[in-house]
Amino acid sequence: MSNITFRDDVQVGLVNSMGTDASVVAAARVSTQGIESLSALNEGEAEGKGLINFLAKNRHGTPFEHNSMVFFVSAPIFVFREFHRHRIGWSYNETSGRYKKLEPAFYIPDKERKLQQVGKTGEYEFVAGTDEQYRIMSEGHKEVCISAYENYQRQLNAGIAREVARMTLPVNIYSSMYATCNARSLMAFLGLRTDRSESAYPSKPQREIEMVAELMEEYFAKLFPIVYEAFERNGRVAP
Amino acid sequence: MSNITFRDDVQVGLVNSMGTDASVVAAARVSTQGIESLSALNEGEAEGKGLINFLAKNRHGTPFEHNSMVFFVSAPIFVFREFHRHRIGWSYNETSGRYKKLEPAFYIPDKERKLQQVGKTGEYEFVAGTDEQYRIMSEGHKEVCISAYENYQRQLNAGIAREVARMTLPVNIYSSMYATCNARSLMAFLGLRTDRSESAYPSKPQREIEMVAELMEEYFAKLFPIVYEAFERNGRVAP
Amino acid sequence: MSNITFRDDVQVGLVNSMGTDASVVAAARVSTQGIESLSALNEGEAEGKGLINFLAKNRHGTPFEHNSMVFFVSAPIFVFREFHRHRIGWSYNETSGRYKKLEPAFYIPDKERKLQQVGKTGEYEFVAGTDEQYRIMSEGHKEVCISAYENYQRQLNAGIAREVARMTLPVNIYSSMYATCNARSLMAFLGLRTDRSESAYPSKPQREIEMVAELMEEYFAKLFPIVYEAFERNGRVAP
Amino acid sequence: MSNITFRDDVQVGLVNSMGTDASVVAAARVSTQGIESLSALNEGEAEGKGLINFLAKNRHGTPFEHNSMVFFVSAPIFVFREFHRHRIGWSYNETSGRYKKLEPAFYIPDKERKLQQVGKTGEYEFVAGTDEQYRIMSEGHKEVCISAYENYQRQLNAGIAREVARMTLPVNIYSSMYATCNARSLMAFLGLRTDRSESAYPSKPQREIEMVAELMEEYFAKLFPIVYEAFERNGRVAP
Repeated sequence: MSNITFRDDVQVGLVNSMGTDASVVAAARVSTQGIESLSALNEGEAEGKGLINFLAKNRHGTPFEHNSMVFFVSAPIFVFREFHRHRIGWSYNETSGRYKKLEPAFYIPDKERKLQQVGKTGEYEFVAGTDEQYRIMSEGHKEVCISAYENYQRQLNAGIAREVARMTLPVNIYSSMYATCNARSLMAFLGLRTDRSESAYPSKPQREIEMVAELMEEYFAKLFPIVYEAFERNGRVAP
Repeated sequence: MSNITFRDDVQVGLVNSMGTDASVVAAARVSTQGIESLSALNEGEAEGKGLINFLAKNRHGTPFEHNSMVFFVSAPIFVFREFHRHRIGWSYNETSGRYKKLEPAFYIPDKERKLQQVGKTGEYEFVAGTDEQYRIMSEGHKEVCISAYENYQRQLNAGIAREVARMTLPVNIYSSMYATCNARSLMAFLGLRTDRSESAYPSKPQREIEMVAELMEEYFAKLFPIVYEAFERNGRVAP
Repeated sequence: MSNITFRDDVQVGLVNSMGTDASVVAAARVSTQGIESLSALNEGEAEGKGLINFLAKNRHGTPFEHNSMVFFVSAPIFVFREFHRHRIGWSYNETSGRYKKLEPAFYIPDKERKLQQVGKTGEYEFVAGTDEQYRIMSEGHKEVCISAYENYQRQLNAGIAREVARMTLPVNIYSSMYATCNARSLMAFLGLRTDRSESAYPSKPQREIEMVAELMEEYFAKLFPIVYEAFERNGRVAP
Repeated sequence: MSNITFRDDVQVGLVNSMGTDASVVAAARVSTQGIESLSALNEGEAEGKGLINFLAKNRHGTPFEHNSMVFFVSAPIFVFREFHRHRIGWSYNETSGRYKKLEPAFYIPDKERKLQQVGKTGEYEFVAGTDEQYRIMSEGHKEVCISAYENYQRQLNAGIAREVARMTLPVNIYSSMYATCNARSLMAFLGLRTDRSESAYPSKPQREIEMVAELMEEYFAKLFPIVYEAFERNGRVAP
């Protein structure tokens, strides 16, 4: 299986986007200004800063929906399993194991990844694993990936359908998808899928989906800097 | 009330948009091509025509979601009442009668508008009104609008809150909103809110929301010509 | 117009419901117990109290969705206009002015209704109106309702379609609907549509939709007493 | 690994439900009857048959939403992966590999399961596998399951967190969930996840999710016999 790849990363690319901080301001101002709200689209950004913070603080959510971001994500299936539970304001199209032979790329945590879980349900904390734990984890997982992919190949070679042959591929195999959202649905995702001490509602996501979230957050912060600042300032709660 | 305006139109402007026919192709191809699907974004349009038609015909809907259109709509409240029942894939922000004094602009149907409903529930048809009916309708409605708006002004002048003073404004008063959707949710809207003989599932919308739908449809046809052609060819059923 | 009715109330009836506090506990426990979570459905209520509070406090929302409430609501159109902006987890069917002659029942605020708005945008407060304001409001609105409904009748009698004749009926005319939700979507509604000092995110809804919300809240508190207590205890934030 | 279980089934239980055919009729009739529509809830079923068929045929969807079904589903992860792409009108809570040690139960197709895929993309057909293919598939998958679960155990025994140890469990491991929907969202699911010649829009789902769909369909047909008949008669298209 010379071509098997073990990776310890996730990847997120921004494929397309629509809207800016100003589009949030325009949508909010239609309440009080009607059609004159359109002029917000031509303003300098400083104008809307106070309004955006007001909206975020008081959780007036709808003005944050008139924009869009299309991401291309490459991550293991167990991350996508969590991701696809976000139903509202998200659209997905993913590589299909029924229609495409899956590539032999598997996720193995790197040495920074905390391996031990301590505490009780609802209050878990993660701490570093020992070298021995890392070795057991890394070697054990690699061995399973190799034999699972060999089995997959063997079944395909025997003329068995992809959708059957893939049944024992492990959940750390990489998949890829387009994921489209708006600023409001992205903030809901970020609030749940990152672990930050400043959050009003702290969350303990699995580290690997947090890695995806962090990459999305970087794009978000660049595309909508004032919205992002308001999100940060108001406890990272989606409005 | 010298400044009262009676209008017989609706207005739709395209504020912003994201995506093209090619973005539908790219999203669909991720199933079979993974990351190579991104190359669809650089192809000429002819490439994806067959695929888009296949998706529309077989109702594979999700690839039509990775795009966005922001419309600014000016129409009477009774149109918005119907519009806002479209919940999925639509975002709205509308002028507020609580936060803004509403302008005295009212919708009165023009002479082309069919005034008589014939047939029974579920099979209504509309036919032209008589001149007398038009006169009764037009004069009657104008009179109510004028007295309702005078009452509104009087209450505001007496220091009564906007949200109370507006309670007897009629449903033909104009409002305005940002309405954001994607190609899939727009096709669902167009399928229900236009009356076309070629529709697989014919619909009998009220004429005034159809006027809004027709204006949106023009923008849609320009932004996504191949998707639009597939929509037309496959019975105007949202995939 | 002897049969015109002026009302100052809204009405909410519970048509049907499914689920209890125990169904929230069962859904939550499937995470940690799998199929054994079903036994929660037979437990006494005390068992799940801590878990429900934990879910509400940390905003784990999905376990609150596996239940349902069907309400029948009678309220003015301007209330329904706000109501229908709640898109997610809500289903609506409403009386149609296209298919039914609307009844001459109109909302006129009672004397308790605060009529004056003070303060600036985003920080409005309402204070009591004067007797003179109440008289201007009440008499003015009634007069408009009467003449608008007379016009409606006259147009119907002249053979004009209901959907045209109704165009100048005022937004305080009563309508009725079935509105179906779950505990999570109802809590989102209650959080936004009631004005309570103990709310983590205070809201200033129009009084009339708050009247609907308060009636729904009573049913909710009876059907899901432990969930309701957790909602109250955790700042009335929908999980 | 004496306790490993290989299963070839999926399981669906009905945990709770709300509503009947009559509740669809009541919701539809509110358009034309207002509050009198409530009387539909006490009628015999024959009354609403024509109306329900009319709604299904013309795709008036909302009256089918004021009801609810809660299912408990036990199926392999690759089935849940497809299931969770149904976003609208569905609520999910699933066993967590982060919070619970997963049981060693794995799906292996039985001898009836067609193993070979023929035809080209978009027009796949499945045909029976040979005995040799069945042997390769069955033995190969079992071997991977056993070694993957041994690795899982070994990592747990070494103190490695469940969420890391589970990374190479295969997608045929069983999981369980509560899945809640209404008649409309269930019909959308059934239309896409069953393969029936009478469908207006034929679909080619993977057999294993179709097995889940078929079990749900049985419950649905019993709970809402008139709605079900209308669904069947009108091309299995969700209204």
